[in-house]
Amino acid sequence: MTKTTCCCHGCLSCFFDYETPRTIVIQSKGVGLLFRFINFLIIAYVFGYVCYLQKGYQDTDSIISSVTTKVKGYSFTNSSNLGPHIWDVADFVIPPQGENSFFVLTNAIITPRQTQSSCPELPTTSTICIADCDCTEGFSDPRGNGIQTGLCVNYSDTIKTCEVQSWCPLELDVNIPEQALLGAAENFTVLIKNSVTYPKFNFHGRNIMSDIVNTSYLKRCEFNRQTDPHCPIFHLKTMVSEAEEEFQTMAVKGGVLGILIDWTCDLDWWGKPCRPQYTFRRLDDKNPTNNVAPGYNFRFAKYFYNSDGKETRTLIKAYGIRFDVIVFGNAGKFSIVPTIVNLGAALSFLSLTGAVCDWVLVTCTRRRHYYLKHKTTVLDDSDDTTESLSMGTTYGTH
Amino acid sequence: MTKTTCCCHGCLSCFFDYETPRTIVIQSKGVGLLFRFINFLIIAYVFGYVCYLQKGYQDTDSIISSVTTKVKGYSFTNSSNLGPHIWDVADFVIPPQGENSFFVLTNAIITPRQTQSSCPELPTTSTICIADCDCTEGFSDPRGNGIQTGLCVNYSDTIKTCEVQSWCPLELDVNIPEQALLGAAENFTVLIKNSVTYPKFNFHGRNIMSDIVNTSYLKRCEFNRQTDPHCPIFHLKTMVSEAEEEFQTMAVKGGVLGILIDWTCDLDWWGKPCRPQYTFRRLDDKNPTNNVAPGYNFRFAKYFYNSDGKETRTLIKAYGIRFDVIVFGNAGKFSIVPTIVNLGAALSFLSLTGAVCDWVLVTCTRRRHYYLKHKTTVLDDSDDTTESLSMGTTYGTH
Amino acid sequence: MTKTTCCCHGCLSCFFDYETPRTIVIQSKGVGLLFRFINFLIIAYVFGYVCYLQKGYQDTDSIISSVTTKVKGYSFTNSSNLGPHIWDVADFVIPPQGENSFFVLTNAIITPRQTQSSCPELPTTSTICIADCDCTEGFSDPRGNGIQTGLCVNYSDTIKTCEVQSWCPLELDVNIPEQALLGAAENFTVLIKNSVTYPKFNFHGRNIMSDIVNTSYLKRCEFNRQTDPHCPIFHLKTMVSEAEEEFQTMAVKGGVLGILIDWTCDLDWWGKPCRPQYTFRRLDDKNPTNNVAPGYNFRFAKYFYNSDGKETRTLIKAYGIRFDVIVFGNAGKFSIVPTIVNLGAALSFLSLTGAVCDWVLVTCTRRRHYYLKHKTTVLDDSDDTTESLSMGTTYGTH
Repeated sequence: MTKTTCCCHGCLSCFFDYETPRTIVIQSKGVGLLFRFINFLIIAYVFGYVCYLQKGYQDTDSIISSVTTKVKGYSFTNSSNLGPHIWDVADFVIPPQGENSFFVLTNAIITPRQTQSSCPELPTTSTICIADCDCTEGFSDPRGNGIQTGLCVNYSDTIKTCEVQSWCPLELDVNIPEQALLGAAENFTVLIKNSVTYPKFNFHGRNIMSDIVNTSYLKRCEFNRQTDPHCPIFHLKTMVSEAEEEFQTMAVKGGVLGILIDWTCDLDWWGKPCRPQYTFRRLDDKNPTNNVAPGYNFRFAKYFYNSDGKETRTLIKAYGIRFDVIVFGNAGKFSIVPTIVNLGAALSFLSLTGAVCDWVLVTCTRRRHYYLKHKTTVLDDSDDTTESLSMGTTYGTH
Repeated sequence: MTKTTCCCHGCLSCFFDYETPRTIVIQSKGVGLLFRFINFLIIAYVFGYVCYLQKGYQDTDSIISSVTTKVKGYSFTNSSNLGPHIWDVADFVIPPQGENSFFVLTNAIITPRQTQSSCPELPTTSTICIADCDCTEGFSDPRGNGIQTGLCVNYSDTIKTCEVQSWCPLELDVNIPEQALLGAAENFTVLIKNSVTYPKFNFHGRNIMSDIVNTSYLKRCEFNRQTDPHCPIFHLKTMVSEAEEEFQTMAVKGGVLGILIDWTCDLDWWGKPCRPQYTFRRLDDKNPTNNVAPGYNFRFAKYFYNSDGKETRTLIKAYGIRFDVIVFGNAGKFSIVPTIVNLGAALSFLSLTGAVCDWVLVTCTRRRHYYLKHKTTVLDDSDDTTESLSMGTTYGTH
Repeated sequence: MTKTTCCCHGCLSCFFDYETPRTIVIQSKGVGLLFRFINFLIIAYVFGYVCYLQKGYQDTDSIISSVTTKVKGYSFTNSSNLGPHIWDVADFVIPPQGENSFFVLTNAIITPRQTQSSCPELPTTSTICIADCDCTEGFSDPRGNGIQTGLCVNYSDTIKTCEVQSWCPLELDVNIPEQALLGAAENFTVLIKNSVTYPKFNFHGRNIMSDIVNTSYLKRCEFNRQTDPHCPIFHLKTMVSEAEEEFQTMAVKGGVLGILIDWTCDLDWWGKPCRPQYTFRRLDDKNPTNNVAPGYNFRFAKYFYNSDGKETRTLIKAYGIRFDVIVFGNAGKFSIVPTIVNLGAALSFLSLTGAVCDWVLVTCTRRRHYYLKHKTTVLDDSDDTTESLSMGTTYGTH
């Protein structure tokens, strides 16, 4: 029989053949130990590190989240320009609802009863004037507050500045109150409701977990990392302290505080229950150097018509703390593809072990020449002539 | 020639050597079948599961998205305290624009003409008093509404409570209207425009797809899962129904409804066109047990100056449905790296097949000793002496 | 000794055995070259493409981000209905603060002094009437503006329409100003502060990088892709131009502009410093075909009490540009798991190389029969009888 016979008699017989390498067993303690030691390392890596620590057998999904917040509290102030005044949620939470953040007013520069009219510009080197000729009608300084009318008018008893058409009187924002107007905001509380979904695993979770909290607990609890880590009601002061900031200092010029909710979850049934972890971090840069417009503030206005029917507004430069609720995390669940990929990659290294040990065997061992002789046969090109003869017989059975 | 000659004559000749294992072919139907069956399973897994189902040959990217919404509709109410009143978009969408969400007012407790003044506190066990001595001037109860003035005044004909300084008259929010004020909001529609990008693949998409909708269709269509799955205009009632909720019930105390837009896409040219899928799900917990502040509401105020020039406000506790547009998804596109990784990992298992079949061969087959004899040679340590002799001749050609 | 002896004498000796394939070395230039060339390709792919280009040795994390924005600028308009008017930030940034976006008003249809009353509906084919009988009391057209009172009244000298109860007078929004009211908004600037975190790597970054900018630079700089790529202050016009749009055109009907901040980072110490890259892209569809409600606008109202104590509002249909700050990116850092996975997968292909070369060897080479004879031994089933005999002796040492 020649080789072609195989194909003639049908591939069926070839189909049932099994081809396997011929091997030699070498009784070398050193190489045997090395081989098993490397394999042990690889297996330990796979099961210890990849499977146990990194959970390489898991498929992951990223989070989608929805947040609602509700601030509670009120505060009484008695400032010189406002008089006695109660501030409640409708006054100090601006805008009244956000998506993933809420702003609590802590300080404010209030400029009431502004109208569209003319008034002297705030004094700077470019606006102080002596006579009308120092001012240019229609000129609009990008760093100014309005369109110059061309007149030079008294800003105070001693200073004259160019008159501008603008919302008058102008806001004077150089001196912000050194003590925060609503420093009492530190006692306000906020209820955060967070609903998350991992769509790939059809997992839905809430930060108010029905298995560990109940209605009566929720009505009286307050977040505390040690004693109440799952209470969704947070004292503003607690949050700022957790971020290692001082509320009263932060309240003066405002800032941005991140409420980070970590939903990293192991969704396998043998994993721990999925619980959110809260951390807090100041997100804006309080460092005064290499910075611009430190703190956090914005301007808004309340519009009225005054008794003359003229549009009037109260301009408020609101300083305060913006709390950004940032929900993040990844869920992992057993999946066959990453398992195969991680195991397969490690298996490749097992086959590499053989190559390493072979190299050691024929290079570093005392009896390397003996091993090499038995392991490897070098085909001599001069055998070529004998090949065609012997093939017919030796190889015929294939 | 000795082994060192090779190195002397140059590595060039070694470089062209090809070393390959010697193998034996075993005509065993069982093991041959097993070998081919396991390999078939692995190949089926790779092509069927990894490539076809899991698209393991794809690199993925996560979405970035921008959403704009526009609510349309108006409603007529005739309540006892407001009188006949038309509500339009500027009245019931608060704030007028959001980023990824919009709020539609469905119910409200309106407390008009509040001013900073004094009035009797709402009656609770701690605020009911008989004489002024029951009240403490300057005391501020965290669960109350203002600073006590120290007086005990008539709340009603029968009840006296401590007077507080606050925005007066106080809001009375215990009795919310049992039928939603703006129940007609169920007929409002919203146009959702969603623009997405997968930056890694430079893919830009919109939920208004120019290839399947045109302007005239957009002007009259309405989303319907069966008949109009790509119309970007949604009836509020349809969305709530799709989430298996009842609009009128949800409207009373409010809630949060997720509009989930799934942009999971196969961006390969042989994939399906990339189309968004809309689903709807209630995100807040309507379960009254293990819950706090169920529903969704927030307070805001409209500020005025009254005819005396005193600041006045209308406080509105707004109940309603917040619609959160949540855009998610992953795009996949052929990439060489994940392909190699997945194929490579499966290849490793192919090499494992050999190990499994070898084990079966020398353990479970009837003729295992025969196979083992031919497959494996055990080097005897006692051959050591012959080695140094034979090496020079047998191995010299290497 | 029989095979069982091994197990009797203890597995210890087996444990130190090392089994390795017997190989033949074939001095074939062609196959040797092929083998080395394929291996070279695989190694080049691994180190060149996977490691260098794709950074396959890195674990990745997705970004979490917080954005604050502050618009600066003011503008003077002198329109027929408003008279001379200064617009400042409190007027044209609506709402005064957003989370990841801000809206700048550029055009507006203002309908002042609306009250809840009755007025003629806007003329359309369905609202034009001749007599009261053409109108239905209580009818509410979804495309109309209010509840019909049943009267037919003069809309103008020539046209009569059904009277509706609504916020009157009705808004007339068909003719929007052809030149944007606040076209001067192109000169406004915005300061964007962005703080990002990669939680897995505990990396925190800001777009105002203290190592390359200082306070004095920040006070005068303006973003320019060539000269000031790291200045966080952006001219609105520059951003729109970078998106290849014309500000004045876009300002008329509004639009949505994406400010994309790419934080793709290599966090390994040998990587480049992590710097944000800004790009700009129009996100809404300006194409008038296959579109609905092009541009970007929303309605809001300012509420007053008029001198009669009646609630009055100024309705504003605000056209403008919404700037969405979209922060995205992935950070990568060396990690052992993806490294092992990528190297392992490539290693598998190295073992595949052997299979390919073997196939070439026994199929395509001139001396294939000779090679095959030495490489492969076919076990003949007829040897079965000799097996049991020889086993005892030949295989006894195992």
